[in-house]
Amino acid sequence: MGKNRLETFSDGVLAIIITIMVLEMKVPHGAEFAALNPLLPVFLSYVLSFVYLAIYWNNHHHMLHATQRVTGTILWANLHLLFWLSLFPFVTGWIGENHFAPAPMALYGVVLLMAAIAYLVLQRAIIVSQGVDSLLAKAVRRDLKGKLSPVLYGAGILLAFLEPRIAAAIYVFVALIWLVPDRRIERVLGENET
Amino acid sequence: MGKNRLETFSDGVLAIIITIMVLEMKVPHGAEFAALNPLLPVFLSYVLSFVYLAIYWNNHHHMLHATQRVTGTILWANLHLLFWLSLFPFVTGWIGENHFAPAPMALYGVVLLMAAIAYLVLQRAIIVSQGVDSLLAKAVRRDLKGKLSPVLYGAGILLAFLEPRIAAAIYVFVALIWLVPDRRIERVLGENET
Amino acid sequence: MGKNRLETFSDGVLAIIITIMVLEMKVPHGAEFAALNPLLPVFLSYVLSFVYLAIYWNNHHHMLHATQRVTGTILWANLHLLFWLSLFPFVTGWIGENHFAPAPMALYGVVLLMAAIAYLVLQRAIIVSQGVDSLLAKAVRRDLKGKLSPVLYGAGILLAFLEPRIAAAIYVFVALIWLVPDRRIERVLGENET
Amino acid sequence: MGKNRLETFSDGVLAIIITIMVLEMKVPHGAEFAALNPLLPVFLSYVLSFVYLAIYWNNHHHMLHATQRVTGTILWANLHLLFWLSLFPFVTGWIGENHFAPAPMALYGVVLLMAAIAYLVLQRAIIVSQGVDSLLAKAVRRDLKGKLSPVLYGAGILLAFLEPRIAAAIYVFVALIWLVPDRRIERVLGENET
Repeated sequence: MGKNRLETFSDGVLAIIITIMVLEMKVPHGAEFAALNPLLPVFLSYVLSFVYLAIYWNNHHHMLHATQRVTGTILWANLHLLFWLSLFPFVTGWIGENHFAPAPMALYGVVLLMAAIAYLVLQRAIIVSQGVDSLLAKAVRRDLKGKLSPVLYGAGILLAFLEPRIAAAIYVFVALIWLVPDRRIERVLGENET
Repeated sequence: MGKNRLETFSDGVLAIIITIMVLEMKVPHGAEFAALNPLLPVFLSYVLSFVYLAIYWNNHHHMLHATQRVTGTILWANLHLLFWLSLFPFVTGWIGENHFAPAPMALYGVVLLMAAIAYLVLQRAIIVSQGVDSLLAKAVRRDLKGKLSPVLYGAGILLAFLEPRIAAAIYVFVALIWLVPDRRIERVLGENET
Repeated sequence: MGKNRLETFSDGVLAIIITIMVLEMKVPHGAEFAALNPLLPVFLSYVLSFVYLAIYWNNHHHMLHATQRVTGTILWANLHLLFWLSLFPFVTGWIGENHFAPAPMALYGVVLLMAAIAYLVLQRAIIVSQGVDSLLAKAVRRDLKGKLSPVLYGAGILLAFLEPRIAAAIYVFVALIWLVPDRRIERVLGENET
Repeated sequence: MGKNRLETFSDGVLAIIITIMVLEMKVPHGAEFAALNPLLPVFLSYVLSFVYLAIYWNNHHHMLHATQRVTGTILWANLHLLFWLSLFPFVTGWIGENHFAPAPMALYGVVLLMAAIAYLVLQRAIIVSQGVDSLLAKAVRRDLKGKLSPVLYGAGILLAFLEPRIAAAIYVFVALIWLVPDRRIERVLGENET
């Protein structure tokens, strides 16, 4: 009931967020490759945020796939997640323009942290609505990545003030452990079909 | 007949409106947290408008769910609603940049008012087309929130010239009473299924 | 076969075009209503273009509804139409910023003309593919509006150099005669169902 | 399983990329046609990129149509393709603003090359998942255009430093040979239905 439209709207918002981030890479006036040098940090921050948003889209895709019924709580938990994701272009531009300075790196971590919490809240809302024996509940039973990520983001936020490169390393690391798509849900869905 | 495409297009427009609003938060040049201070009112206005557009999407979602047939009148009433919603990024940027000054706050209220009227017109067009015994007609029989909101927006517009903070309080209050999703339609749909 | 995706993509492009036009209304720095005065022509041009794009979406919606099969030719004729529609934000901004001066008004007419021709080409491609006895072929048999519009746009382009206000009147007039949704197709579809 | 959402998201991203490119054509301040002269190269680069993105959408449409099952690998191969396509607005703006200078033309070719490779990777991922006897595998057996294009892009990148006009000619030429929609897949699908 209405799941289709929830997906369409989320896909639309995510597609726009992921695409307007590229507008932060302002076209340089010079015509030589050297004119691109100041854009390198902006480009790197774009790649990192693209990967993060792609991970969110991917996992969102799997999570909704294991959802049968959409309630008002799920709709709002989803909008809450989209709100934090919508701040990605802003913080991405800020870290890119300031070459990964401490304050921008910490704020980037705050947005990552809030999005991760919003994702967990959405997951919980879906499980509550579908029942603890639902596919999703089984799939995320030992949600190690989901529980570890907020802790790592928190560490990144604090360490950004000490040495922003450590924060950068942590954010890249978390992205890498998530790049593996959520095979847990795929596995449980597979078992169920058998 | 064609309801699907009406939803897809509305979702697309709403997704874009909600997302390009964030472009009004221009990335600051400084790299300290103090550089974010001038952006605080812009951020607050973004949050308010995000919540309003989320409410519209949510209620639109419920209203269309209770709609069986799409007519030419419904198509145009929907486009009329989208027109007023498309002015949100502009007025949101204006109140944000001018720290909630009287004129911008009044104009923000005008856009809220026109969108609310456009929503009621769309609701009426759907009820006329579906019949007074339709699910939607039953669901909105005592549409207290829908009737009260325009009155409150009108008060907000007038009071903005006296003290814009009162207008702000009214706009936040109306958003809060709408944050409760439209359980009326959910309830009537539930009854009907029984 | 694939009609769904053609509609989704067209809806996406149209939704974005209609929404990014609003970005041409730059948020003014002043906080009084007088600061909005220079934006009035930009707002008027936005309203006109919004109505035109809404008409295109509406008629596109009806035309595709009467289409059974999508061929390669239809895909490209559709992309060709979207190309001309994508120039709306540019010409809309140009007439708005220059208070409806002759050259911008003429170019606006050129884009209107090219979009109208592209629409007729798409209509022809669909009729060729569906057969002359198809619903669409019957519906547009006496396509008076479709044939008259390009002539009126042509007149508007020429008269823009004499007096741009005449061109403006013509463009508004054509929009008004199209605002009536394409009841011909609705009627023929209705007959068919009987 | 999930193919629908993959298409919706890709359509959304492609629709946005193709549309925000037009924002690179900044509205000129002058009101005469002469004010458009500096925009001519930007317009030409917009046309070229519009055609390329339209080709990608078209072929993507056909390829997905011949796909039955979506795996995690396909999801990521698709996101990888969208990443390279998302750089189109940037390189399009760069070649347009610098009148097709050598370095921008070479970088444009690099993005074309990477997108072409990403497309082949996606095609391979789909074939691996669907089996070598699948419709798609049959359709692209002698994928001359797919194999030739990267070679031509490579030549364009190198020749851009010698004479950017040769690179431009090559990029236009490749676009032209792809403008013919992928009739191979249509043909094989047609045979299969028989």
